[in-house]
Amino acid sequence: LQSKLPHVGTTIFTIMSKMAADHNAINLSQGYPGFDCFPYLQDLVTKYMNTAHNQYAPMTGVPSLRKRLADKTLSIHDVEYDADEEVTIVSGATEALNASITAVVRQGDEVILLEPAYDCYEPAVRLNGGVPVYVSLNVPDFSVDWNKVADAINPKTRLIMVNTPHNPGGYVWTQEDLNTLADLIRDKDIYIVSDDVYEHIVFEGKKHLPLFSHHELKERTFACGSFGKTFHITGWKIGYCLAPKALTEEFRKIHQFLTFSTVTPMQYALADYMEDPSRYLYLGHFYQEKRDLFCEGLKETGFSFTPTEGSFFQCVSYGHLSQESDFDLAVRMTKEIGVASIPTSVFYHDKRDHKILRFCFAKDDDVLEKALELLQKGI
Amino acid sequence: LQSKLPHVGTTIFTIMSKMAADHNAINLSQGYPGFDCFPYLQDLVTKYMNTAHNQYAPMTGVPSLRKRLADKTLSIHDVEYDADEEVTIVSGATEALNASITAVVRQGDEVILLEPAYDCYEPAVRLNGGVPVYVSLNVPDFSVDWNKVADAINPKTRLIMVNTPHNPGGYVWTQEDLNTLADLIRDKDIYIVSDDVYEHIVFEGKKHLPLFSHHELKERTFACGSFGKTFHITGWKIGYCLAPKALTEEFRKIHQFLTFSTVTPMQYALADYMEDPSRYLYLGHFYQEKRDLFCEGLKETGFSFTPTEGSFFQCVSYGHLSQESDFDLAVRMTKEIGVASIPTSVFYHDKRDHKILRFCFAKDDDVLEKALELLQKGI
Ligand SMILES: CSCCC(=O)C(=O)O
Ligand SMILES: CSCCC(=O)C(=O)O
Repeated sequence: LQSKLPHVGTTIFTIMSKMAADHNAINLSQGYPGFDCFPYLQDLVTKYMNTAHNQYAPMTGVPSLRKRLADKTLSIHDVEYDADEEVTIVSGATEALNASITAVVRQGDEVILLEPAYDCYEPAVRLNGGVPVYVSLNVPDFSVDWNKVADAINPKTRLIMVNTPHNPGGYVWTQEDLNTLADLIRDKDIYIVSDDVYEHIVFEGKKHLPLFSHHELKERTFACGSFGKTFHITGWKIGYCLAPKALTEEFRKIHQFLTFSTVTPMQYALADYMEDPSRYLYLGHFYQEKRDLFCEGLKETGFSFTPTEGSFFQCVSYGHLSQESDFDLAVRMTKEIGVASIPTSVFYHDKRDHKILRFCFAKDDDVLEKALELLQKGI
Repeated sequence: LQSKLPHVGTTIFTIMSKMAADHNAINLSQGYPGFDCFPYLQDLVTKYMNTAHNQYAPMTGVPSLRKRLADKTLSIHDVEYDADEEVTIVSGATEALNASITAVVRQGDEVILLEPAYDCYEPAVRLNGGVPVYVSLNVPDFSVDWNKVADAINPKTRLIMVNTPHNPGGYVWTQEDLNTLADLIRDKDIYIVSDDVYEHIVFEGKKHLPLFSHHELKERTFACGSFGKTFHITGWKIGYCLAPKALTEEFRKIHQFLTFSTVTPMQYALADYMEDPSRYLYLGHFYQEKRDLFCEGLKETGFSFTPTEGSFFQCVSYGHLSQESDFDLAVRMTKEIGVASIPTSVFYHDKRDHKILRFCFAKDDDVLEKALELLQKGI
C-alpha cells in the first residue's frame, strides 16, 4: 500500500513520552495535565451513564452543551452563535480542525501555515489535495510578520490556519493582528480555521481575542476548541467548532462521516458542569501560578526565555550555551538530567532549529519543583 | 463556501428519529438499542475515571483493549493479529471506515459499493477523490451477484467495500462468497474495507465469516468493528480496525490526524469487561429471541419477509400491497400507525425503490409487541 502521508512517522509526543517513561524522567514534553479533573465532573458522567444516556448523541451534539457554548461565547466575548445551527460538538479539537480543513480545502488550494505549527494541520491539508504555504513567525516571541503573510497570499490561497494562544510559543494575537488579517483578506475568497484550544489559558494583562470577535473575520472563521484542555480531560476527546451557519452546514457534512457523533454521557455531564462559569474562568489564574513558579526556577538554569503569554507551554532558548541540535539536547536531557521536553524544530516542515525547547508546565507544583531542581543542577 | 458534498442532506436516521419523537411513534428506524448496557460496565468506567484515567490514551489505543481484541479474534476465528502492530482503537466504526478508505483511495481510484449500502461509505470515497462504482445486491435476499462484481472490476478498481452481516439486509457472507472474491481480485492491486459491526449478531445455522478468515483476503483487508453495537453503547463511540501491519501503519497515520485517540476510561473499562467472553458471545442468542418474536408478529401484518440472518434489522416487502413509495409509506406509518422505520431506497445512490422497509428490533420485548400490535391493526 503506497503511503498517502509518506513523511509522517511516530509523533514527537509519543516518542518523548515513551522516552520519559523508559528513563523514568519527568515528562514535560507532551501537552496534557499531570493532575486530574474535578471529582464532581466524574460524578456527573456516572450519573448520566447510570440513567441510560449511553446511546448515540445527536450528530450535532447534545443541545444543552451546544447552548452552554453559545452562552459562554456571548457572555465572554459578546459574540452570538446560534446554538442549533452554528455550534457542533465533535470528538476532540483534532477532529474539529480536520473537519474544518476538509470542508474548505480542494485539490490545488493553497493553505497558509504559520510556523512553528502544531503537527496535525499539514497532514489534513495534504489529504485534501491542498498545498501548504509556510510563513515563519518571528523568533523568539512568535508574533506574526504581516509582510510575510501578505507576500504569501495569492489567488490560490483558500485558507489561513491561526492558533492563538499559540502552541508552542504562547503568543496571544492582538487586536492589531486581527485588524491586519481582516484588511489582508477583505474581498478575497479566503477562510480561516482557528485553533483556540488554549482560549482560557491566558496570563496577566493579555486577553484572548478570538478571530470571531472581529465581525468581518467571523464570517469566514471555523473556531475550534477543546474541553480537554479546559477541564483537564484530554482523554475524553471532546471538542467543538463554532462557525456561521453556511460554514457549519459544510462542517457537519464532514463530521457526520468522520465520527457521526461524540461520547454521550460526557456531553451531558459537561453541559451541567459548565453551569458555573467559575469552573473555567479560574483557569488563567490557576495556570499563571504554575507559569510563574516554573519561570522563577528557570532563571537559575542558564536558559534564556520570556514568560509565555498563554497556553501551558514555556519555550526556552539555549543557543548561547550550546550548538547541539534541539532534538539531540531534548533526548540527552531526558536521559541524563531526567526531564523530557519537546524540540521545537518538529513544528517546522524543514525541521528548522532555533535552539528552542518547549516545556509543559501543566503539572503539580511538586513535579515542577523537582524538574526545576534537576534542570538547575544538570544544565 | 462551495460544498464538497452537495448531495448530502440530513441523514434518514436523524429525519426518522425526529419524526418518531414528534409523532410519539415507536422508533424502529435508527439502529440503536432501546435498552441499556450492563451496570457493571458503567461501574468499570466510573472506577477508571475515579482513578485518574482521564488524559490521552495512546494514539493506537489502550494496550489491554488491543490485546483483548487480538485474543478474541484468535479464539473465535483462529486468526492471529499482533495486538501492538495490527489492532487500533478509534472513535467509532464510522472513524474506522473513514480512516481505512482514506488510507487507500486516491484521486480517480474506483471503489465498488454493493447496494443497498450504509450511508457513510460513499461520502468518504468522494472526499478522497475516489469514484464510486455501484453494484446491486440481489433482491430481496441481498446476496451477492458475483457476475456483476466481476464486470465492475477493471484496472482502476482500488477498493471493494464489504458489509457482513449486512445492513439493512442481514445477509451473511458464505465461504463461497469469500472464495469467489479471493479468485476475482488475486494478482490485482485491490484492497477491502470490511464493515463487521454486526459480527456477533448472527442467527441459527449461520456463522459470521470475517473476510480475514480467508488467508489471501486477510492481507488486503481493513476489518472495521464496533463496541457500540456489541455492548449496547452506541453513544460511547468506540470502534476498532484490524489490519496487517503494512495496512495498519497507513491506517494509523490517518487516525492520528482525524481524532488522535479515543476516550480513555471507556477503553480501560471495556478491556476488563471483555475478560469474560460470554459478555459478547450471548449476543446472537439474545437477538435471535427478539428477531423471532418480531417475525412471528410480522406474519399477521401482510408484509412479506424472510427472517434476517444477521444484524438487528428486519426488512419487509410490501409491493404486493401498495405501490406507494417506500419513503412516503415510512412517513405515513410513522404518523398514522405510530411505528417508524427506514425506507431502504435511501441506501441506493439512485434512490431505487424496491418497496422494502427496514425495522430495527433491538428494543425491549414490550416495545416490539406494542409495535407489532400497531402494525397488525394499521396495515
Ligand atoms: C495529542 S498529543 C499532543 C498534545 C499537545 O497538544 C502538545 O503536546 O502540543
Ligand atoms: C449512526 S446512526 C445510524 C445507525 C445505524 O447503523 C443504522 O440505523 O443503520
